[in-house]
Amino acid sequence: MNAYQKLKKQFSDISLVEDISSILSWDQATIMPKSSAQQRGAQMGLLNRIQHQMLTHPDIKYWMEEALNDDTLSSEDKVNIFEMKRHWIHTTSVPEQLSEKLTMATTVGQIKWEEALHNNSFDDFSPYLENILEVSIEAAHYKGEKLECSSYDACLDSFEAGITVREVDKIFNDLELFIPDFLQKVIKKQENNPLPPKNLSFDIEKQKKLGTQIIKAIGFDFSKGRVDTSTHPFCGGTPYDIRITSRFDSKNFISGLMAMVHEAGHALYDFGLPEKWQGQPAGQARGMSIHESQSLLIEMQMARSEAFLKFLHPQLLSTFGLSEAEWSFNHLKNLYYQVTPGFIRVDADEVTYPLHVILRYNIEKKLFDRTLKVRDIPHFWNEYMAKTLNIEPSNDKEGALQDIHWSCGAFGYFPCYTLGALTAAQLYEAFKQEHRNAEQNISCGEFSSLVGWLRKNVHQKASLLSRDELLTKATGQPLCASFFKKHLQTRYLT
Amino acid sequence: MNAYQKLKKQFSDISLVEDISSILSWDQATIMPKSSAQQRGAQMGLLNRIQHQMLTHPDIKYWMEEALNDDTLSSEDKVNIFEMKRHWIHTTSVPEQLSEKLTMATTVGQIKWEEALHNNSFDDFSPYLENILEVSIEAAHYKGEKLECSSYDACLDSFEAGITVREVDKIFNDLELFIPDFLQKVIKKQENNPLPPKNLSFDIEKQKKLGTQIIKAIGFDFSKGRVDTSTHPFCGGTPYDIRITSRFDSKNFISGLMAMVHEAGHALYDFGLPEKWQGQPAGQARGMSIHESQSLLIEMQMARSEAFLKFLHPQLLSTFGLSEAEWSFNHLKNLYYQVTPGFIRVDADEVTYPLHVILRYNIEKKLFDRTLKVRDIPHFWNEYMAKTLNIEPSNDKEGALQDIHWSCGAFGYFPCYTLGALTAAQLYEAFKQEHRNAEQNISCGEFSSLVGWLRKNVHQKASLLSRDELLTKATGQPLCASFFKKHLQTRYLT
Repeated sequence: MNAYQKLKKQFSDISLVEDISSILSWDQATIMPKSSAQQRGAQMGLLNRIQHQMLTHPDIKYWMEEALNDDTLSSEDKVNIFEMKRHWIHTTSVPEQLSEKLTMATTVGQIKWEEALHNNSFDDFSPYLENILEVSIEAAHYKGEKLECSSYDACLDSFEAGITVREVDKIFNDLELFIPDFLQKVIKKQENNPLPPKNLSFDIEKQKKLGTQIIKAIGFDFSKGRVDTSTHPFCGGTPYDIRITSRFDSKNFISGLMAMVHEAGHALYDFGLPEKWQGQPAGQARGMSIHESQSLLIEMQMARSEAFLKFLHPQLLSTFGLSEAEWSFNHLKNLYYQVTPGFIRVDADEVTYPLHVILRYNIEKKLFDRTLKVRDIPHFWNEYMAKTLNIEPSNDKEGALQDIHWSCGAFGYFPCYTLGALTAAQLYEAFKQEHRNAEQNISCGEFSSLVGWLRKNVHQKASLLSRDELLTKATGQPLCASFFKKHLQTRYLT
Repeated sequence: MNAYQKLKKQFSDISLVEDISSILSWDQATIMPKSSAQQRGAQMGLLNRIQHQMLTHPDIKYWMEEALNDDTLSSEDKVNIFEMKRHWIHTTSVPEQLSEKLTMATTVGQIKWEEALHNNSFDDFSPYLENILEVSIEAAHYKGEKLECSSYDACLDSFEAGITVREVDKIFNDLELFIPDFLQKVIKKQENNPLPPKNLSFDIEKQKKLGTQIIKAIGFDFSKGRVDTSTHPFCGGTPYDIRITSRFDSKNFISGLMAMVHEAGHALYDFGLPEKWQGQPAGQARGMSIHESQSLLIEMQMARSEAFLKFLHPQLLSTFGLSEAEWSFNHLKNLYYQVTPGFIRVDADEVTYPLHVILRYNIEKKLFDRTLKVRDIPHFWNEYMAKTLNIEPSNDKEGALQDIHWSCGAFGYFPCYTLGALTAAQLYEAFKQEHRNAEQNISCGEFSSLVGWLRKNVHQKASLLSRDELLTKATGQPLCASFFKKHLQTRYLT
């Protein structure tokens, strides 16, 4: 085997270990008896250790050098080696001792975060978060040196290759200026919208059946995947065996249904990755913001469009035996499009959601450049909520303690949610430009042109293109906020 | 860390890899989409490779030498090192190239066996089995050299430590002399036994509910395990997370119910292994024949006893809404105790089952000492069936092609089934001697004294005792056939 073949074999093995971890994580979240939690932790720990050993194999460095100088390789192979190198840098640039320190800090951190959440006290969590932050900054510094970027840019890069504070700032400033005023207009416009009756109960089995019917229509292939129930919905498994989950609430069918649709969007991406590059870094999904764009395009752009609601409405009536009088199409639309500022990010509507993300992003930047102290986060948080959404959390559960991310050291992750929403709007607009009868098709339950377009322009590209290249090829320009703003205008103010 | 601590860590990691494989195997057999078969194969292959690398780590040899000379270790620790060495010998004594040859031969062999089974032609399978046999004999020869025993004894040892042809021959000769005449007497005695009506249908969901109720009563802990459905029933998972499966037939509730009870017997063993030795070779189940004794003790000795049928009968009537007139206790008993010579081992009753096993054992011995050629197996098979059971297979599906074992190279496995049945009879008799009101308790659904006795005498011993030591401590003597013969006499002829 030549150097490149050795690299491919090594990364293919690493990918298999990731696949195994993914199945075990799914198992843990859905069906594992609780008694096995500690042992499953040990199993996952061992798999992490094995994966780390594989990625830090001393020969990889020389194989990469040799492969990069191999003139017989195609440009796609070179991209593959470049992606290998990125993964390798993220893993090897942090000294082993520091890496272990981070693992310890976040392991303790997650337990302490849960306790603090239970006690509704950010102060209880604060010293542990300080520790996580210090170690994370040090680790990011090492990565930044190798990647030739700032520490926080290195954090962003670990979730979505090549994204920088410079780009994110530009986009988020635009949104931060736009949303607050826009929000007030929407609230005013919605004041007297009639809503369907409250306090109805929706049978869980019927909800599952409807969800299954809907995502099957959209293109989720049940011969290559499963749907189950877990506390937090997610999409896991492997491209040949995709496992999505949802959770169901008898008071509210939208939450469970749209979680299924959202995860089906992630699943379509994984189903559509190029088989030829299976197990190789270039064959993986591009990154977190592109992955989120695929779920949000299906959930927010497509499955909350008027066209889709036309397809959904009769199925809702027949599934739950609802009356047309109380559950007219307009009732349903008003329910789906309701905008209400709230404290909790995961419950937010698409208008207010970006502000939740920008708040966290601003805090992370300030923590990294030392202009905000961990203990001052709640004050900063509450002021921002009051300023932008006109509501102020009355306690830490409603505020700075609500997310698990920081306790895991996942700095740089939050921006991907909103970058994904913007990417989704931009891609969906490009799709509609190419398919003038797109909405007509969707209202008839015809989704193949959309899925086909995504497959060609996003899924099949995997990591063979950079995010900028992918977006420019598919939409004519790199990411910008204008498509998302236009989308909000159209949906909520016309 | 001293040498012994290093060994313990290494074997604990190996055990974790086995646990991961076990969960993935369960997943594959129960819920995995078929599309993932090839990828799952690659995942399992990688785990095997990792486990092999861990067990062949060059330092293990020196750690073992050092640890065996460490006078500070307890006698149980020494047993643990001895068990490590046994596993290590089975893995390292076969040269790597030969080991790979065996993997290839059996991988192809399983595919060819399935094809041959489909075509009902042993001749199609014959050349592949010849290849598997040759490589297996060579591998067993290497193991036998290190273990200081014959090649076939080395095969037996890999499934149940220390069992030899000498011991098995003695026991099987005894049975082979006993069963054929005994069988004729039983058939004669059962001639006019009234049976319940045929052609009834038993709702699958009700079967599952009844099975759950029964194994819960026996002691299966649903907070530490699960029951699901698969084509072939099995017990998998880990001691903290035991996963048993069954399969259900609407025409016949006994098959699915007793499979659940059988697997629950395996599960009780795993639940009861000593926590202190979790992940160490000395803490593992003793071997295949002891494991099988635990399932057969629960299924055959206990759950087919008259006492248990008294407990089961009213639950059957109420679950399936059967009438006392057509489904009297005697009807049920006659159905459960029906003895009928048949072609298929897995469908056999407990009287004829040992002959199916002895046939295969005789063939394996003859193959290993070259007194039987692979292509002559069907002839030998059919003659034996005619001679002992008075029935002759009309084709290979009913005969020499029915089992998967040889296609996997699992020579030496079959005897464990019958050794397990004999061990079960011997242990159950010892339990009844100690608990004079045992049957009274069981007929009232009181199983804790039985499970407690097994826990103390078998489960908690794990591999800390040899099979002989374990049996002698629990029953006063090493394994012999007389308890099993007495059991058959009592159940079928009195």
